[in-house]
Amino acid sequence: MKLHIRKSLSNRHSLWKLLLLASSLFIFSSASLWSQDNASAASEPSAPVETYGSFKESEGYATFATDNLWILLAAFLVFIMHLGFATLESGLCQKKNTVNILFKNCFIISMGVISYYAIGFNTHYPGDFNGFFKLGGPLTDAFTDSVNDDGLTHSFANLTSEYADYTYWSDFLFQAMFAATAATIVSGAVAERVKLSAFLVHATALVAIGYTVAGSWHWGGGFLTTLGDALDADGNVIAAAALEAGAEADSYSNAFYDFAGSTVVHAFGGFAALAFVMVLGPRKGKYTESGIKPIVGHSMPLAAIGVFLLFLGWFGFNGGSVLSADSELISRVCVTTALAACAGALASMLVSTLVIKKPDLSMALNGFLAGLVGITAGADAISPAMSIVTGAISGAIVVFSIIAFDKAKIDDPVGAISVHGICGIWGTLAVAFFGGASLTGQIIGIVCVSLFAFVFSYALALILKSTIGVRVSEDEEERGLDISEHGQEAYSS
Amino acid sequence: MKLHIRKSLSNRHSLWKLLLLASSLFIFSSASLWSQDNASAASEPSAPVETYGSFKESEGYATFATDNLWILLAAFLVFIMHLGFATLESGLCQKKNTVNILFKNCFIISMGVISYYAIGFNTHYPGDFNGFFKLGGPLTDAFTDSVNDDGLTHSFANLTSEYADYTYWSDFLFQAMFAATAATIVSGAVAERVKLSAFLVHATALVAIGYTVAGSWHWGGGFLTTLGDALDADGNVIAAAALEAGAEADSYSNAFYDFAGSTVVHAFGGFAALAFVMVLGPRKGKYTESGIKPIVGHSMPLAAIGVFLLFLGWFGFNGGSVLSADSELISRVCVTTALAACAGALASMLVSTLVIKKPDLSMALNGFLAGLVGITAGADAISPAMSIVTGAISGAIVVFSIIAFDKAKIDDPVGAISVHGICGIWGTLAVAFFGGASLTGQIIGIVCVSLFAFVFSYALALILKSTIGVRVSEDEEERGLDISEHGQEAYSS
Amino acid sequence: MKLHIRKSLSNRHSLWKLLLLASSLFIFSSASLWSQDNASAASEPSAPVETYGSFKESEGYATFATDNLWILLAAFLVFIMHLGFATLESGLCQKKNTVNILFKNCFIISMGVISYYAIGFNTHYPGDFNGFFKLGGPLTDAFTDSVNDDGLTHSFANLTSEYADYTYWSDFLFQAMFAATAATIVSGAVAERVKLSAFLVHATALVAIGYTVAGSWHWGGGFLTTLGDALDADGNVIAAAALEAGAEADSYSNAFYDFAGSTVVHAFGGFAALAFVMVLGPRKGKYTESGIKPIVGHSMPLAAIGVFLLFLGWFGFNGGSVLSADSELISRVCVTTALAACAGALASMLVSTLVIKKPDLSMALNGFLAGLVGITAGADAISPAMSIVTGAISGAIVVFSIIAFDKAKIDDPVGAISVHGICGIWGTLAVAFFGGASLTGQIIGIVCVSLFAFVFSYALALILKSTIGVRVSEDEEERGLDISEHGQEAYSS
Repeated sequence: MKLHIRKSLSNRHSLWKLLLLASSLFIFSSASLWSQDNASAASEPSAPVETYGSFKESEGYATFATDNLWILLAAFLVFIMHLGFATLESGLCQKKNTVNILFKNCFIISMGVISYYAIGFNTHYPGDFNGFFKLGGPLTDAFTDSVNDDGLTHSFANLTSEYADYTYWSDFLFQAMFAATAATIVSGAVAERVKLSAFLVHATALVAIGYTVAGSWHWGGGFLTTLGDALDADGNVIAAAALEAGAEADSYSNAFYDFAGSTVVHAFGGFAALAFVMVLGPRKGKYTESGIKPIVGHSMPLAAIGVFLLFLGWFGFNGGSVLSADSELISRVCVTTALAACAGALASMLVSTLVIKKPDLSMALNGFLAGLVGITAGADAISPAMSIVTGAISGAIVVFSIIAFDKAKIDDPVGAISVHGICGIWGTLAVAFFGGASLTGQIIGIVCVSLFAFVFSYALALILKSTIGVRVSEDEEERGLDISEHGQEAYSS
Repeated sequence: MKLHIRKSLSNRHSLWKLLLLASSLFIFSSASLWSQDNASAASEPSAPVETYGSFKESEGYATFATDNLWILLAAFLVFIMHLGFATLESGLCQKKNTVNILFKNCFIISMGVISYYAIGFNTHYPGDFNGFFKLGGPLTDAFTDSVNDDGLTHSFANLTSEYADYTYWSDFLFQAMFAATAATIVSGAVAERVKLSAFLVHATALVAIGYTVAGSWHWGGGFLTTLGDALDADGNVIAAAALEAGAEADSYSNAFYDFAGSTVVHAFGGFAALAFVMVLGPRKGKYTESGIKPIVGHSMPLAAIGVFLLFLGWFGFNGGSVLSADSELISRVCVTTALAACAGALASMLVSTLVIKKPDLSMALNGFLAGLVGITAGADAISPAMSIVTGAISGAIVVFSIIAFDKAKIDDPVGAISVHGICGIWGTLAVAFFGGASLTGQIIGIVCVSLFAFVFSYALALILKSTIGVRVSEDEEERGLDISEHGQEAYSS
Repeated sequence: MKLHIRKSLSNRHSLWKLLLLASSLFIFSSASLWSQDNASAASEPSAPVETYGSFKESEGYATFATDNLWILLAAFLVFIMHLGFATLESGLCQKKNTVNILFKNCFIISMGVISYYAIGFNTHYPGDFNGFFKLGGPLTDAFTDSVNDDGLTHSFANLTSEYADYTYWSDFLFQAMFAATAATIVSGAVAERVKLSAFLVHATALVAIGYTVAGSWHWGGGFLTTLGDALDADGNVIAAAALEAGAEADSYSNAFYDFAGSTVVHAFGGFAALAFVMVLGPRKGKYTESGIKPIVGHSMPLAAIGVFLLFLGWFGFNGGSVLSADSELISRVCVTTALAACAGALASMLVSTLVIKKPDLSMALNGFLAGLVGITAGADAISPAMSIVTGAISGAIVVFSIIAFDKAKIDDPVGAISVHGICGIWGTLAVAFFGGASLTGQIIGIVCVSLFAFVFSYALALILKSTIGVRVSEDEEERGLDISEHGQEAYSS
């Protein structure tokens, strides 16, 4: 896609061409499925296949239905995170860039879900694939093997398998909402000076390709899950000869462990953001000869709404990652999640009061998020007591990290690189310290994913810079992106 | 009610009389039930009747409990839509009318739920009724046949019936939240110039009578479900003689199909809004000799919060309409809902960029809603691929529709007529195109419901105009309804 | 804790010392558990103990999983209430104190959850304790008896007991979110002039000690549940001799009945607020010689968002208090909750239109909350019809109460004392009038809890006044707490 857009998009009004191109691709991929789907009958839309009907009568259905409901509810909660990101980011930026930020967030969730349908889901979960880079096809491919005798496409064949406690529909929705968060992390870091068209291309490639490829290394059965020696069920190393003779590994000695994505989602997003920010440069007037000029957010209530919604959504982000409604696990995971978030906020309040000499609300808000990112990798493996420690350390780290990036003239208006990138790394390491994971495996996973995110994003940003440009003009930045990109103001009387 | 209020309400301070009248009615209807209800015992409030107790021990209870929980959660999600409407509408209107809009939304949900208790539920679901116009009584009537041996009114008799997978309590709450949305649609279209007292009367009549009567035609087992030839289980036409001899129809050849209400809720609300707007006239200064003057919303963050909350709530609106937690169906419905919403937003972004020559945030926001309204009729019948197409077309339609209504000098500050009315029609037709429904049945349903909504609302508005008046004075409109109607400003320092 | 802080905190920058002290306590209590928790293995984090595994295969698990899921969802809903309180309180206060209010709310939920972990949960639910004042230990104590053979701390021993339909994890999270609401009620009443450090200490003591001790009297099996004569299963009084001979009471004739906390949470918070307000005094310029000067809120949309979120969260607050997903009960409770809230709003609209001569939005918003607080004590015991009456009376009371407190020069910027304190009392009495509870028992409960809350809070506030001070200087109040306490403004361009 990148090659096609080089010159044709160098003028202002070419944004719609991009959108047209992208939309055409998706509509085309959808339209090709018309014939097979169009036979569905509204008069009996829910007529279950015989086998689904008997499954519903069987003993296991009640638990399955609860499991499936929880995954669906978790998808809704992760959806709420997108509203959280939209309001947090708006609140922490200047008034004159609010429309632009909201538009970007509308685009991210839309393009995120549609692209995950078109390509992402099957890239992310390629089945037995253990490689490094492979793209999947549209969602419906996954359903073609399904029972389909009433004109509707059912996912029943998978529905009762040993593999899953939920329908593929729920799985898709949960993972699609999840995927789109990666681009949202970047959005905040590049706010207030990124060119809209460049951001839209970057976000699409990042969500549809970058995130899903990296994610497949861990969650798609990729190489990060098979690090180190193959172990049998008792934890003993299986000899190479035995493996060649067909012995199967139960687990691996240095397997990378990242429960809900401290690295695979958050560090990925954080380092993709870092790369884009480095290509983009800081906001005009931020780093002057007389020092760092703070550019304060235009609405702290919006920012606070954002953080509370993110906290809420995280119960689905982590709790849904259990992939069932297992009573013990989902409840435990939600408890560690809440404890880490609260400890993170308290630690940030304390540390910022010590360091900045005032009880800073922005830091308190980032403290919640730091705690949440920090516990994400080990929410099921770290005890409640240690989740408080993990969250508190994360909340302390984020204060120093935000200050350090500012000193390094890496301009990140919302602190996304610190919250997601740095605390994502901390959280992944914390599973080794407090949750029994292999430190080697954790480090390998962090390096592979973060490096890939950085390189992917950096290369993409450079290509965009040399083609359509990544940054608005100084004059446009001065007037604000709302007027210069959208011809619209966020507030009026 | 309308006849009683004619002259007595023509002065400013008569609003309270209206409220008094309405409240008295409800309190009276409640108070008449005092004696039978007042015997309940707090010391054993939950003491189950023996039969409920044995049901809870039975095999089917676990699934029933999950089904019931989901309907309840869906009610909460639809409740969230009311906050979504309140914030969307506030954000898209001028600052000086914000208190008025919020007050209207507070009233709608309150009066909506209470009137649904007093009259709506039993009008909406009259059992075997197949007629055109019939009013029901208070909710508790439905419960009097219930097991009631512990001093509390239980709905147990219905609870385990073949009919429902949920308690009547959950059913009531879900449908009550649903019903109130019809008036909310109107609220946005008439904003910034409607007289508060007139709106309150209009909304009450619309929710308590208009919506529930029209809804009964489809969901209450009314005539829209028995259109065309009677068919047996194999889809063959049953001869008239056989029907007279007592043969029962399994379905009907031209049955109207509207899963969650593209027509029955949204087109109903949209055309009721159109009628009221036509009686009311445009806002002062909107259509001048020198052209159409845009009146921009005062807070795009509020509007965006509204749309995201509406998107979230729609998972309950559509998913809850499955009326059980059937794993296959609720998950499928939520997937088509999300895909259509996202495709709608992308299409609106694209089309508005093409047509208005800028990436317009308001259009992007309305695109989400257009896609959601569009998929509502066929969320269970249209495939995921076709739900993308349905949503995308809806998102394109809404842009042209909003522009067209503006050219026709139909002043709709939030685009509600286009989003709910026009896209509601499109969505209902889409089930014929992509979901196998009868085109004839769909057209009959659309015409009957939309026409009824229009005529009902138009007649009501005319009566109000000739009695208490429907519009504030020019001076009041100029100063804003917050000051003129409420003596209060929405924002201060 | 109070004795240690006397002099050392009298200067401005000593806030961090307080935070340091508090955080140290919690981190210490956590760290002491390090050794026992640190053995957990990430490679098999969810490996169930054999007994849990067999429970999951058993017939009862499906219902248990649904029950547990609901308690967890209810905890999320109560969490949302904290965002509701934060936005309501911000919206109803002046712009210049917004950062301060948001910071306080961030602190309350953080400290609330962590302190509930460290001390609150085991103070609140002490098992067989029937006394007046006893403090518990950290959460993990409750889990040490649990099955624990895989390196993780499981709560399995309790999980399948007759006692509970949910895991202790869910119980903890629900109750922790609940507990933190008590301090939030106070926050609104003391806003715009309270010193941040004093509030933080007050809130911590109130949540960690005051609320949990008072709560244990009712929900912890304390003396309020054993008032009056001991009754057998048929409701007959058991003779003293029989009791001495070992006969066990089935219930008590004057047992205090408070389903979800009209008294135990709301009146507690309301009277704690009243005491603090009396020590603190009114805002500068509120009560002048020329009369009462209204100080209006700075953002009604924020306030409205808050109330809708509180309404939503209340479904979890009341519905979750069923402590299972019992279909009949949770649905019934949510219906009475919604009816009372809506009736409360209608009544407030009506009464404020009659009394204040205008349809007042603030009163409408407080009417929802009044109805909600009013039904909380009897949501499971009062019929739907009577819940409308209960809510409507509550909505009328709140208008008069707010006016009366203002006349008495008790300055409560958000009306929290009226909404939670006065309507909490009304709601508790309503269970005697409409739900069959003992009036004597209700009055005893109200007096004991409200008096304790008042005295506890008053004494605490006096101690704080004589040590670190409870009120900012006049100059700081004039400039606003955002600048004077945080050096940060909530809004900028």
